[in-house]
Amino acid sequence: MSLGVCYFPEHWPSERWATDVEQMAEAGLEYVRMAEFSWARVEPERGEFDFAWLDEAVELVGDHGMDAVLCTPTATPPKWLVDEHPDIRQADADGTPREWGSRRFTCFNSPTYREETERIVREMTARYADDPHVVGWQADNEYGCHRTVRCYCEDCAAAFREWLESTYGDVETLNEAWGNTFWSQQYPDFESVDPPGPTPAEHHPSRLLDYYRFANDSVVEYNRLHADLIREANDDWFVTHNFMGDFPTLDAYSLADDLDFLGWDSYPTGFVQDRRPGAPTTDELRAGDPDEIGMNHDVYRGAKRAPFWVLEQQPGDVNWPPHVPQPGEGAMRLWAHHAVAHGADAVLYFRWRRCREGQEQYHAGLRKQDGSPDRGYHDAAATAPELFDLAPVDAPVALLHDYESLWATETQPHSPDWHYWSHLRAYYDALRARGVQVDVVPPSTGLDGYAAAVAPTLYLAGEGLADHLTAFVENGGHLLLGARTGEKDPYNQLHETLAPGPLADLAGARVARHESLPEQFDTAVDYRGGAYEFRTWAGWLDPTTAETRGRYRSGEAADEPAVVHDGAGDGTVTTVGCWPGAGLADALVEDLLAAAGVAHTAPFPDGVRAAERDGYTWVTNFTSEPRSLAVPADAAFVVGDDTVGAYDVAVVESPLDAVGLEQY
Amino acid sequence: MSLGVCYFPEHWPSERWATDVEQMAEAGLEYVRMAEFSWARVEPERGEFDFAWLDEAVELVGDHGMDAVLCTPTATPPKWLVDEHPDIRQADADGTPREWGSRRFTCFNSPTYREETERIVREMTARYADDPHVVGWQADNEYGCHRTVRCYCEDCAAAFREWLESTYGDVETLNEAWGNTFWSQQYPDFESVDPPGPTPAEHHPSRLLDYYRFANDSVVEYNRLHADLIREANDDWFVTHNFMGDFPTLDAYSLADDLDFLGWDSYPTGFVQDRRPGAPTTDELRAGDPDEIGMNHDVYRGAKRAPFWVLEQQPGDVNWPPHVPQPGEGAMRLWAHHAVAHGADAVLYFRWRRCREGQEQYHAGLRKQDGSPDRGYHDAAATAPELFDLAPVDAPVALLHDYESLWATETQPHSPDWHYWSHLRAYYDALRARGVQVDVVPPSTGLDGYAAAVAPTLYLAGEGLADHLTAFVENGGHLLLGARTGEKDPYNQLHETLAPGPLADLAGARVARHESLPEQFDTAVDYRGGAYEFRTWAGWLDPTTAETRGRYRSGEAADEPAVVHDGAGDGTVTTVGCWPGAGLADALVEDLLAAAGVAHTAPFPDGVRAAERDGYTWVTNFTSEPRSLAVPADAAFVVGDDTVGAYDVAVVESPLDAVGLEQY
Amino acid sequence: MSLGVCYFPEHWPSERWATDVEQMAEAGLEYVRMAEFSWARVEPERGEFDFAWLDEAVELVGDHGMDAVLCTPTATPPKWLVDEHPDIRQADADGTPREWGSRRFTCFNSPTYREETERIVREMTARYADDPHVVGWQADNEYGCHRTVRCYCEDCAAAFREWLESTYGDVETLNEAWGNTFWSQQYPDFESVDPPGPTPAEHHPSRLLDYYRFANDSVVEYNRLHADLIREANDDWFVTHNFMGDFPTLDAYSLADDLDFLGWDSYPTGFVQDRRPGAPTTDELRAGDPDEIGMNHDVYRGAKRAPFWVLEQQPGDVNWPPHVPQPGEGAMRLWAHHAVAHGADAVLYFRWRRCREGQEQYHAGLRKQDGSPDRGYHDAAATAPELFDLAPVDAPVALLHDYESLWATETQPHSPDWHYWSHLRAYYDALRARGVQVDVVPPSTGLDGYAAAVAPTLYLAGEGLADHLTAFVENGGHLLLGARTGEKDPYNQLHETLAPGPLADLAGARVARHESLPEQFDTAVDYRGGAYEFRTWAGWLDPTTAETRGRYRSGEAADEPAVVHDGAGDGTVTTVGCWPGAGLADALVEDLLAAAGVAHTAPFPDGVRAAERDGYTWVTNFTSEPRSLAVPADAAFVVGDDTVGAYDVAVVESPLDAVGLEQY
Repeated sequence: MSLGVCYFPEHWPSERWATDVEQMAEAGLEYVRMAEFSWARVEPERGEFDFAWLDEAVELVGDHGMDAVLCTPTATPPKWLVDEHPDIRQADADGTPREWGSRRFTCFNSPTYREETERIVREMTARYADDPHVVGWQADNEYGCHRTVRCYCEDCAAAFREWLESTYGDVETLNEAWGNTFWSQQYPDFESVDPPGPTPAEHHPSRLLDYYRFANDSVVEYNRLHADLIREANDDWFVTHNFMGDFPTLDAYSLADDLDFLGWDSYPTGFVQDRRPGAPTTDELRAGDPDEIGMNHDVYRGAKRAPFWVLEQQPGDVNWPPHVPQPGEGAMRLWAHHAVAHGADAVLYFRWRRCREGQEQYHAGLRKQDGSPDRGYHDAAATAPELFDLAPVDAPVALLHDYESLWATETQPHSPDWHYWSHLRAYYDALRARGVQVDVVPPSTGLDGYAAAVAPTLYLAGEGLADHLTAFVENGGHLLLGARTGEKDPYNQLHETLAPGPLADLAGARVARHESLPEQFDTAVDYRGGAYEFRTWAGWLDPTTAETRGRYRSGEAADEPAVVHDGAGDGTVTTVGCWPGAGLADALVEDLLAAAGVAHTAPFPDGVRAAERDGYTWVTNFTSEPRSLAVPADAAFVVGDDTVGAYDVAVVESPLDAVGLEQY
Repeated sequence: MSLGVCYFPEHWPSERWATDVEQMAEAGLEYVRMAEFSWARVEPERGEFDFAWLDEAVELVGDHGMDAVLCTPTATPPKWLVDEHPDIRQADADGTPREWGSRRFTCFNSPTYREETERIVREMTARYADDPHVVGWQADNEYGCHRTVRCYCEDCAAAFREWLESTYGDVETLNEAWGNTFWSQQYPDFESVDPPGPTPAEHHPSRLLDYYRFANDSVVEYNRLHADLIREANDDWFVTHNFMGDFPTLDAYSLADDLDFLGWDSYPTGFVQDRRPGAPTTDELRAGDPDEIGMNHDVYRGAKRAPFWVLEQQPGDVNWPPHVPQPGEGAMRLWAHHAVAHGADAVLYFRWRRCREGQEQYHAGLRKQDGSPDRGYHDAAATAPELFDLAPVDAPVALLHDYESLWATETQPHSPDWHYWSHLRAYYDALRARGVQVDVVPPSTGLDGYAAAVAPTLYLAGEGLADHLTAFVENGGHLLLGARTGEKDPYNQLHETLAPGPLADLAGARVARHESLPEQFDTAVDYRGGAYEFRTWAGWLDPTTAETRGRYRSGEAADEPAVVHDGAGDGTVTTVGCWPGAGLADALVEDLLAAAGVAHTAPFPDGVRAAERDGYTWVTNFTSEPRSLAVPADAAFVVGDDTVGAYDVAVVESPLDAVGLEQY
Repeated sequence: MSLGVCYFPEHWPSERWATDVEQMAEAGLEYVRMAEFSWARVEPERGEFDFAWLDEAVELVGDHGMDAVLCTPTATPPKWLVDEHPDIRQADADGTPREWGSRRFTCFNSPTYREETERIVREMTARYADDPHVVGWQADNEYGCHRTVRCYCEDCAAAFREWLESTYGDVETLNEAWGNTFWSQQYPDFESVDPPGPTPAEHHPSRLLDYYRFANDSVVEYNRLHADLIREANDDWFVTHNFMGDFPTLDAYSLADDLDFLGWDSYPTGFVQDRRPGAPTTDELRAGDPDEIGMNHDVYRGAKRAPFWVLEQQPGDVNWPPHVPQPGEGAMRLWAHHAVAHGADAVLYFRWRRCREGQEQYHAGLRKQDGSPDRGYHDAAATAPELFDLAPVDAPVALLHDYESLWATETQPHSPDWHYWSHLRAYYDALRARGVQVDVVPPSTGLDGYAAAVAPTLYLAGEGLADHLTAFVENGGHLLLGARTGEKDPYNQLHETLAPGPLADLAGARVARHESLPEQFDTAVDYRGGAYEFRTWAGWLDPTTAETRGRYRSGEAADEPAVVHDGAGDGTVTTVGCWPGAGLADALVEDLLAAAGVAHTAPFPDGVRAAERDGYTWVTNFTSEPRSLAVPADAAFVVGDDTVGAYDVAVVESPLDAVGLEQY
């Protein structure tokens, strides 16, 4: 378990580099990521390459006992290149080109840009193929950032037509699969299909879903181009990519096969402000939301069921959220430990030093722009010696997450309050509050190792999925199915039968009808003898073989079943019609864990979380209030002690379910 | 009085059709509307027509004793047509084309699209000219939906120039009429006039108003093309069109001459969310706002002073509003009775069955997608036997509504809170709360049959209007003139005299000055010895011959006249300077009804409404609270009884003014 | 000190002009501004000029003893001109042209439009070069109104490249100055630089800043073209321009050298609604915010440290704010006196008469559209005899305001609550509440005459500025430096050292770190033994030689220095890390004034302000509550008396610091 840092030597005089690298080593850092965004520095004119500066930087890193991770610089092509080839630019849906001058404006499907990508990646990888200090590569940077997964240019139009032809074979099949009789939307041939442009009313949902799939596949192909070229140069190198948090438009799982491990960029105090509904608390503005960060850790770990890296870890104040309070004292250490507890092998702070120039001047580094240490440097230096080697996380519960269901439900949310990630979080947070490690995995994942599985919204469900989940339950698995599961078939049509379509036999119930409810309604469910809040969505269940365990209390839904329970083989399946509030989610999860025999704790309060890895249990406190731990008398603390201060962490050699809070 | 349904046989296997039609007949439905949006099904390739499916569906409908209503399918031309002729697309004001892929993207002025329209309408009407089961046609679908009345393409530019030349004759007349000296806006010739594109500051209001008139006239011409072709094929057919609710950009009255009766599409729980300022109550989210629905009934009835149809009646939950609670139990029955009370001859539910494909999957039908009955089916079946034949509504009061005044005031609202329909509703709701039937008619309507008339905002007023209203009053009519009346001449210039311009003699007063007031001000008027709230607008009246009956209480307007009253001949005219709150509107209306001798009730509470038609009085309860009626001892209930439950209705054979609520 | 009016004779029949002008003279008006927007009237076809109407109007004005001020009509070119030369149109950043049909759509850099401007200005100035009644010219109208300083057309692209080449000489210097290594943003040559178009992520801040400077310089050049042509025709004429209030995109100071005096357009009840964060009070909706108006007076006075004109004074209700309550009784008189107190030489009401046509029908004049007097006419007539000749304002305090710092901070606000003008207003309002006259001047202004200077945010700070301010302090000046001062160098890069960069020696402190805080945090500073609120921004100060005088009370910043104080030579410098609330701003200002020996009052309440000019003290009451004054027993009132009513003014012959409120 290691720390590292992202470094841009080209932003500073070369005389300074030796000092910088020495200070990195002194702090105990082990990895230095470089060359991201460096294309114009590496190739100032077409064909004129300058690697001397990078050679020197890599050498310095190696000389100080650290490893270099390099990046392909394709997120920011030089101006001379886009002036030569303006066709490499993406376009908005109305045809407006996305211009040079920031980053990520190039089309994944541009044949020209793929050629140029191949050219620069070959040059760079060839240069360092034999360099002992370079251990691996990050392909490009944050694919799809700034809403750029989906492009609407002419190259994309052509590629989309090919994608459709290769997917459907003939246009009649496409028309049937999408359901194009509606509103006279039949296509006469593949040539007549366009990217979805500006229309007076909303688009056909099947057309949109396939466009989003196509756009995603374009990124997969573009990433594979990088990965293949990197491995061609040196097969010992690892290849990774830095994904983003709560990211909606790119299916991280679909890139997993081409990467050795996944990385992601964790900015806790920004995420609570700009990609999660609900106002952040002051504690969250200081340290973030541990379940928001944790869920992303678990997605990127889940993609390969293997350790991941945090390729960018927030180092202090950053430039892009609306508000930028200073992180809580110690938060930069807390985040690193929290990542390790969730299965990270390495955590790289972004960036070494606050940059004087360009768009990110208000983004702190471990060092200030004058070279002096900022708070992050002290936190990093304190953390490095606390880390130690660990086996991977072994999670007892799988949470089934499906990007295509995200795309499809958010295209037809049927409520302004529908938010796929937030609904998923209702279950995730309940599991994490009880300390349970959760693999967030695609629904097609083999489920053999799991005692229980939670499927918040498998909206697009075909027969294959039904078979897969039925087998899991029959083999003794315990399954929780959430709202809007099975509403659609994989082409985004309604099933011929009522939801959950092919999952109805397994669930022992169908959804008789549904409604979406704004906050002004009273929304509660009777469950286990108590009244529990729900929100936004109410599916009225109609059990066939299932037993009713919860009913709606009021409104038009009064007395309709809301939670039903059935068994199959050695397992059980519980189906939930509504979006549960925290109390109902906890009750559902507690019952699930009990049925599955999964070790867990009493619920920890918001902002305080426990997690077990390799026989150690971490307690991370993302709040400003110190907490006292109750642990077995003979348990050894390897980090901290039984008082976990504000924004502090303790690691104790103890199984999870022996750990709790005093007086809570 | 009949029920019907909208049916899309092309969305389902033909094997199912007989079952569907049989279930329609069983529910007591009498009309089946079909073929809307069917162009690509009817003509899959240019010149290749396939009517067999529709022939069969019409035949089935007829075989079950029902009548078919067909639609011209021009709201959704096939992809092959727009690929052949991309010039048929509309354009936004900045020139962006409105693309194929939803509906309503074609330009009303496109010569190409008019040709294509003529071609398809001739084909379809010829096919069914001799079919005994087809009783009439709906021309196109929801003209102007999705903000498409106004197009800014090259065809529209050319047509606008012709429209102006034919309206004004020479450009000097145009420059004078608009007042183009302002900001050097004189045109040298008609060729130099463009549609209003993106400008740094706001547009000339006279230019905008004429563009809106021109765009409206384009729809009138386009509709006439349909109507003429339909009648040419079979002169016995009726021709109608399905207008929309609270619709701002299309003057429904201007299409009335070309239609046999008007239809409209009523979606009560959607309208309260997306086209009416103010948050809906939970009751409204379950059943809608009876005065919002009623006003639309009365507009489309008023257009011809004749019965109308509800061509689409909400059948349950629908796809397009933000939130979609299930309608209240019985609401689908309530809406049908309410429509009949307001003068509907037929109410067609939209749609027969929830569609598996395309944009409207979240729109319920009378049946679910698996073919089983949904709540709407039961409501429809319960309603059908309760309907009986009735004479048309005979309304004692005319409410004068002018679409051009809507367009002109909303172009220059002078307050973010100005909303033409809402201001009109202040008076409409007060009349309806007292049970009075109201014809909502254009100001040019002959007023002979009316005892009283209310003109909330006749903003654009010429001498002709003044003569017309003066004659009404002199002949014994009682007139109420509301805020912003007579501010402008018909070209959207201020009058040379103060408002109400040519109506000043009739009013016996002028508007000395006006102001718009945000909510934070105390806004009240003294009237009849009490203080009544007003909102948004205060015209300070300056009576010449009129008597002051109300004065502002506070602010800079304190003691200025707010309500004045005058007489002329045998009638009276009351002029109101402000936008009245509910209390003031009721007081003004009560005084008007008393003066005019119009029968009315005590005010019913919000959501409960009474209406008389043909000697019967309906009491409709749009709330979740049951109500007890007080009716004459010998009055016979033909529907329900003296307890009107939640979302329930009663019909009693009794004059309106003998009906009231117990204990209210 | 004079009153005047803006007149558009072309909007009215010529028969009326004599009456209009006579009524102006009767009211005591002395200046009549005309011909603004008159191009199409003056030149209805290319080369066909019609000046007869304007000759007659000028003659009438002169005959009634008044002076004419004419305007070049270039804000509204005729339609025939833009049809001939569509290249004169500006373009939005995405290339959409700004169309004819309102005003201000022409590009300042268009060679064609500069030629046309020269042609029309030569014609008009030649016509009146010898006319004794014309005393001066307003160049164009409200440069940059409707967001038009910045244009993105091809002419601008070319001009920007030239501007950069002339600024930087070679492209390497540009790349270095901007810091283009970041994200591979190096330019290969000047030809490759474009205006900043639509990009997925934000633009390089240095590129934006230079684009804003370039756009500003384009206006300077365009204005100089007018000024040179006007003076060429008649060197005795004055040349001015009517700037706008709280205007963010045009550096008024940069045009000062080309103008004889600056004018501006004051619309108090609109400004509080649309260009100032924070909801207006009801009093402000009636009369405006005296410090908002005052700050603008002081900017336009400060530009030349000389009297200015109000070229447009709100005359009553106006058309463009969201809400338009009638101004408080007397407000139009109050505003004129308030302007005079702040140094105005003339106040011209806009407009003479409400216009019947075009975009501004809802803009009152001194007379109504029917020719009768409106409230403004009575106020103007009451004010004229109250005015008398006065020496210029002699302000003891300079407030250093830098438009480029506004542009740069609002490009990188780092908080949604950052608003340059509002932060500046914290200090300005505190000074004005104590009656102090303030010159709002550019930072390069010679500071010799000032006892104290306040620099709220000199964000872009170079060595020259440091030397300038150090000299001021060393020579006995007392300086207050506010938040975000010295964060950047003049090219919008961070300094190599921590803020305030080159000002750190003077301040005796650096900013160790900063944070931005949303409202939900408790934000207070301990200062002078009390707790004072601050908001939005906290710079944690690190004193080197300075003494700490205030510390943060809570949060991560607890105990960090917030206010530090140092001396240099005979003066002092106080550095403030946060955005002070009203209480802290008053305390800081009080200490500053005390140190500098500047006469001042006890704080006046919100809306009530005192100001001294030439030995007289004005007390202006912008509230609805009457106030009683305490003045020396022998002090003579020249306007009003010791009770200042609602929206009223008193002028007393007394020094400022002898004036106060009773019982307050």
